[in-house]
Amino acid sequence: MRPSGRKLSELRPISIETGVMGHAEGSCLIRVGGTHVLCSASIEDKPPPFLRGTGQGWVTAEYGMLPRATHSRNRREAASGKQSGRTQEIQRLIGRSLRAGVDRLALGERQIVIDCDVIQADGGTRCAAITGGWVALRLAVNKLLAARQLTSDPILDHVAAVSCGIYAGQPVLDLDYAEDSEAGTDGNFVMTGAGRLIEVQMSAEGAAFTRAQMGELLDLAEAGIAGLVEAQRAAVA
Amino acid sequence: MRPSGRKLSELRPISIETGVMGHAEGSCLIRVGGTHVLCSASIEDKPPPFLRGTGQGWVTAEYGMLPRATHSRNRREAASGKQSGRTQEIQRLIGRSLRAGVDRLALGERQIVIDCDVIQADGGTRCAAITGGWVALRLAVNKLLAARQLTSDPILDHVAAVSCGIYAGQPVLDLDYAEDSEAGTDGNFVMTGAGRLIEVQMSAEGAAFTRAQMGELLDLAEAGIAGLVEAQRAAVA
Amino acid sequence: MRPSGRKLSELRPISIETGVMGHAEGSCLIRVGGTHVLCSASIEDKPPPFLRGTGQGWVTAEYGMLPRATHSRNRREAASGKQSGRTQEIQRLIGRSLRAGVDRLALGERQIVIDCDVIQADGGTRCAAITGGWVALRLAVNKLLAARQLTSDPILDHVAAVSCGIYAGQPVLDLDYAEDSEAGTDGNFVMTGAGRLIEVQMSAEGAAFTRAQMGELLDLAEAGIAGLVEAQRAAVA
Amino acid sequence: MRPSGRKLSELRPISIETGVMGHAEGSCLIRVGGTHVLCSASIEDKPPPFLRGTGQGWVTAEYGMLPRATHSRNRREAASGKQSGRTQEIQRLIGRSLRAGVDRLALGERQIVIDCDVIQADGGTRCAAITGGWVALRLAVNKLLAARQLTSDPILDHVAAVSCGIYAGQPVLDLDYAEDSEAGTDGNFVMTGAGRLIEVQMSAEGAAFTRAQMGELLDLAEAGIAGLVEAQRAAVA
Amino acid sequence: MRPSGRKLSELRPISIETGVMGHAEGSCLIRVGGTHVLCSASIEDKPPPFLRGTGQGWVTAEYGMLPRATHSRNRREAASGKQSGRTQEIQRLIGRSLRAGVDRLALGERQIVIDCDVIQADGGTRCAAITGGWVALRLAVNKLLAARQLTSDPILDHVAAVSCGIYAGQPVLDLDYAEDSEAGTDGNFVMTGAGRLIEVQMSAEGAAFTRAQMGELLDLAEAGIAGLVEAQRAAVA
Amino acid sequence: MRPSGRKLSELRPISIETGVMGHAEGSCLIRVGGTHVLCSASIEDKPPPFLRGTGQGWVTAEYGMLPRATHSRNRREAASGKQSGRTQEIQRLIGRSLRAGVDRLALGERQIVIDCDVIQADGGTRCAAITGGWVALRLAVNKLLAARQLTSDPILDHVAAVSCGIYAGQPVLDLDYAEDSEAGTDGNFVMTGAGRLIEVQMSAEGAAFTRAQMGELLDLAEAGIAGLVEAQRAAVA
Repeated sequence: MRPSGRKLSELRPISIETGVMGHAEGSCLIRVGGTHVLCSASIEDKPPPFLRGTGQGWVTAEYGMLPRATHSRNRREAASGKQSGRTQEIQRLIGRSLRAGVDRLALGERQIVIDCDVIQADGGTRCAAITGGWVALRLAVNKLLAARQLTSDPILDHVAAVSCGIYAGQPVLDLDYAEDSEAGTDGNFVMTGAGRLIEVQMSAEGAAFTRAQMGELLDLAEAGIAGLVEAQRAAVA
Repeated sequence: MRPSGRKLSELRPISIETGVMGHAEGSCLIRVGGTHVLCSASIEDKPPPFLRGTGQGWVTAEYGMLPRATHSRNRREAASGKQSGRTQEIQRLIGRSLRAGVDRLALGERQIVIDCDVIQADGGTRCAAITGGWVALRLAVNKLLAARQLTSDPILDHVAAVSCGIYAGQPVLDLDYAEDSEAGTDGNFVMTGAGRLIEVQMSAEGAAFTRAQMGELLDLAEAGIAGLVEAQRAAVA
Repeated sequence: MRPSGRKLSELRPISIETGVMGHAEGSCLIRVGGTHVLCSASIEDKPPPFLRGTGQGWVTAEYGMLPRATHSRNRREAASGKQSGRTQEIQRLIGRSLRAGVDRLALGERQIVIDCDVIQADGGTRCAAITGGWVALRLAVNKLLAARQLTSDPILDHVAAVSCGIYAGQPVLDLDYAEDSEAGTDGNFVMTGAGRLIEVQMSAEGAAFTRAQMGELLDLAEAGIAGLVEAQRAAVA
Repeated sequence: MRPSGRKLSELRPISIETGVMGHAEGSCLIRVGGTHVLCSASIEDKPPPFLRGTGQGWVTAEYGMLPRATHSRNRREAASGKQSGRTQEIQRLIGRSLRAGVDRLALGERQIVIDCDVIQADGGTRCAAITGGWVALRLAVNKLLAARQLTSDPILDHVAAVSCGIYAGQPVLDLDYAEDSEAGTDGNFVMTGAGRLIEVQMSAEGAAFTRAQMGELLDLAEAGIAGLVEAQRAAVA
Repeated sequence: MRPSGRKLSELRPISIETGVMGHAEGSCLIRVGGTHVLCSASIEDKPPPFLRGTGQGWVTAEYGMLPRATHSRNRREAASGKQSGRTQEIQRLIGRSLRAGVDRLALGERQIVIDCDVIQADGGTRCAAITGGWVALRLAVNKLLAARQLTSDPILDHVAAVSCGIYAGQPVLDLDYAEDSEAGTDGNFVMTGAGRLIEVQMSAEGAAFTRAQMGELLDLAEAGIAGLVEAQRAAVA
Repeated sequence: MRPSGRKLSELRPISIETGVMGHAEGSCLIRVGGTHVLCSASIEDKPPPFLRGTGQGWVTAEYGMLPRATHSRNRREAASGKQSGRTQEIQRLIGRSLRAGVDRLALGERQIVIDCDVIQADGGTRCAAITGGWVALRLAVNKLLAARQLTSDPILDHVAAVSCGIYAGQPVLDLDYAEDSEAGTDGNFVMTGAGRLIEVQMSAEGAAFTRAQMGELLDLAEAGIAGLVEAQRAAVA
């Protein structure tokens, strides 16, 4: 029933290749089916101004898409002179999600910037960016720990994300573009390795939805996140 | 326990004054406690370009805040030369929420623009904007119906929004600024008059949350929305 | 003869409601006929950089118009990414006018920002903004005096503004939109409570005008300003 | 008494050299003392969109200043990414003033753009731009008349401008920078060749002023404009 | 003598992987040593406005760099709101170079946009972008030929680019970042497969250079281009 | 054979008038045939931030064109809100070229900004800007030397620039607009007074070119530069 032939609760194939950007403190190329995102982590010595002197650090994110990551070419945001509302919404979500998995006092007064750039898009780019962004963050923090610039690990748990939605009347896991563009309701779920919730964003694209449907999507998301966390574990091992 | 002395499940006092912007096809000033938002609806004869020739209409929204709506003055966005990511995220949410309550084929090839400008902010401005924006929209559509420019009512149901969160360890309804700035988890819930869900946005500001907590917040939201819909009904009567 | 039925030298009804923006040090909603402007005064601890160390303070203003303050909706300046030439010209005029009524040494090294946002427009918005802006400024300075942060009153006199023009061949006071869009010559006059001139701006929209006509408009303006100052006095009493 | 040694009612030396920009339909370099402005007129076949089909034409102006026209270097507006409020205010004034001297129906559906670029600034640049801009406009219209693209002359009269102010307690004509930066009150006066008024803009930089003072400045302006019109006449002869 | 141990006339290892961006009509990832650039070609049905009706097509290019392609993170151009002068200069060079290898009449009224995004930078990014951009272009044109949307091949010859410079007093081929940042004189050379010149850009970073030195760099460039063209041939075979 | 009737190796008439911008530390109006450029040098007390504390100075340049310097009017860059890629490319070239002729340690920690504004354009504006910009720079440095703010002369040699190209199959010197718009290959050559090379930029506008053609253009450029340096010498004498 799904365009890809997947089962309702089946994730797309995942691969996470680390170390792909030689200058970054942490980096990976995450592929979730046809969605490919380059993620890098850059450590900066100073936190943003509003945290100076508080002993706390910060994690933030920026998101972009290469102009031809999509079916037809999009205008380059650097050329149009501003980031779209969609881009800003996504990068705020990535930053907020990753921060929720970090002890900012243990991180100390520094900032880690996660850059997520979509090379190829086939639905679920923000979720792939969060899942891959966490890998880049983990690798960068490992570098700080190895260099004894940090004495305790500020990372509290895995953070991963997946989308679910109601497609052709059925709850499905990990929507690709073909499903996403048709889905009645869809949601993005960010969770920890322990299965707790960090962000839930659900929208009725067509008809409003019920609490029962919401529960079905959450069930799917929990199972999906477990698979993604497994892939993260393998990548940073 | 709440700074305002309200009960956990108590909304702030609501008032909705209609007709406050004489040139608009629909308008209101909604006051939810100390949060005051001016909402207007402007009817445009043409839909946006991507809908020309489809027979469908569009509802969109813009959001702004007067520089001194807040405790200390914020820079005017028109002067800084761009809308912040927060502003764009909010206005996209308002537009998406209101569209979910409209039959766009019944609306026909026209656009209704909802402007929501915060005069005074005390938490929950986006929710007040959705609730008041629906009133402005309803009044503008009434004008089209009265003028027989529409033959059937494109508005499917009420749309209203409320925030809930976990404050001092307890689930509370309709957070004000004092609560919002301290809340561990908070969420915005957009629902129809019939109690179905349009948008759910929950974030762990501190610790991640559980499905059980999510359920408690949803319970509060359902009760709160009922009160807001009541106020909408009285305002447009 | 006037569209509103007013006499040639008759002001529109004026109301000034103070304290409408709870967070501001001073605020009012001024209504001059169908022109409604929200004015707030924000006190900042530091003067602008060019005055640091001089012992002098500064008063400046910003002006905006809600998109649907007018007959048809205007594009939001924050969305278009810049303030129009008209907006900048008006806010420069408001700031210059209010500064002329202030002893900047007595004000000391602080800045007061006056925000004037037009809620509904029916001609004469810049004049209403000056008249209402002065009330917000007066209230904010009163707060500084009451808190003994100022020892002498830096406000030298009232500042108020009115427009006059030649409509249908006759000099008329306080043009509304219907008159303004037809007027041959029009002018904005900013004066003190004592009747001295702060700004005179007259333009021939059609035929050039004479010194005699200029004198007639000044006579009207003097009478009109007296009425506006009376309303200011009542508002701040 | 004046820094330049001029009499109170004495203009600075004026020279107007025409034809200095070979590609423009009309051009001149106007020098009013140490203030030098390049003015060009460009004829465009079409009026701005709001006039299409009305049979009327348009005259508009743009103003700029070379970065080192002034005592110390100013940031280039093209590099800073926007025109300042001052620039926009000035170019709106130039355009409005020149339009007041043109019969826009006789001009027909075309637009003439006047560019005024200050090469060297010593006070009064906006007045020099208006006076020189009129010469460029006159020459461009002459070209249309000579080519029989116009059958009647759309130029109604000369338009020229001069500043006056109260310097060291005395009313003086044609302020240079040294005077302008000290003047208590100053004004810009735009008049026709026949001595009628097009624009009056007076500001109290320090103390408010009286109607009597206003009259004295107008007397000076009338005499000054006569001298400028004489120079225009010689230049276009 | 070279930091990398290469001989004076030795290119870095080159790899060109095609088909890396699934939606693009042509794409490759070119690696020249540590410099990695993603290149895509997007075919658009219409030429730019200035070519409509001329029967000619256009090839243009855009260039970007991921924020962490470099040793320390650079600000994202989309976030800063404009492309730097360096970016614009490079993308103009890429476009001009590739156009020089295309018969624009044979291409017909369409446009091909080449996007070059640097994933990792180690000197010579603009040269790698030209060399890889040609491969993407070639593949896109092959698709048009295969679909019989083109009847004759508009590509006249290979286009490839390499940098040369004077490093530690010696002329060297294909500078990496360590050399580039120290080089006295450096140049970029764009050539055809037949060895003719398309662009020569040489700069004295320190001391001015002589015609003899220029000749030595050209000799190196000719040899280098031959190697690059060989790699292009293998990639598109 | 040339539209102007010049010989293949003949420069256009050159005039360099100094002191044309009274406030600048150095200035000139350079006329190369119909190309007229105003050049000024502004001395600033501090170098750019990246040189603070290094003992070195900086020379930079900005370039602009009056809207009506060309056959038809161009949009004013200050109004469009950004400098074009062409403008940025040119001003980077001017700055780089002039810096190559300066000993930045001898200049000390200050910055000299060269502004080049094209009053009238007839081809070769960037070359005229470099040649005239050097004169402004020379005059400003002379002022520093005369005031004993510099003890040794930081200017190493003359810097001048000329374009050459292949027009109608023949190599020609100093292209005017009529030639430039038709030239198959063209190049800009920046050289020192001693005849060494600072910048070489050659582009195949049509067919690719050969090393032999490159040599012919360099021969022409060397002769042309000698003439320009002669004119510089006369101007600063």
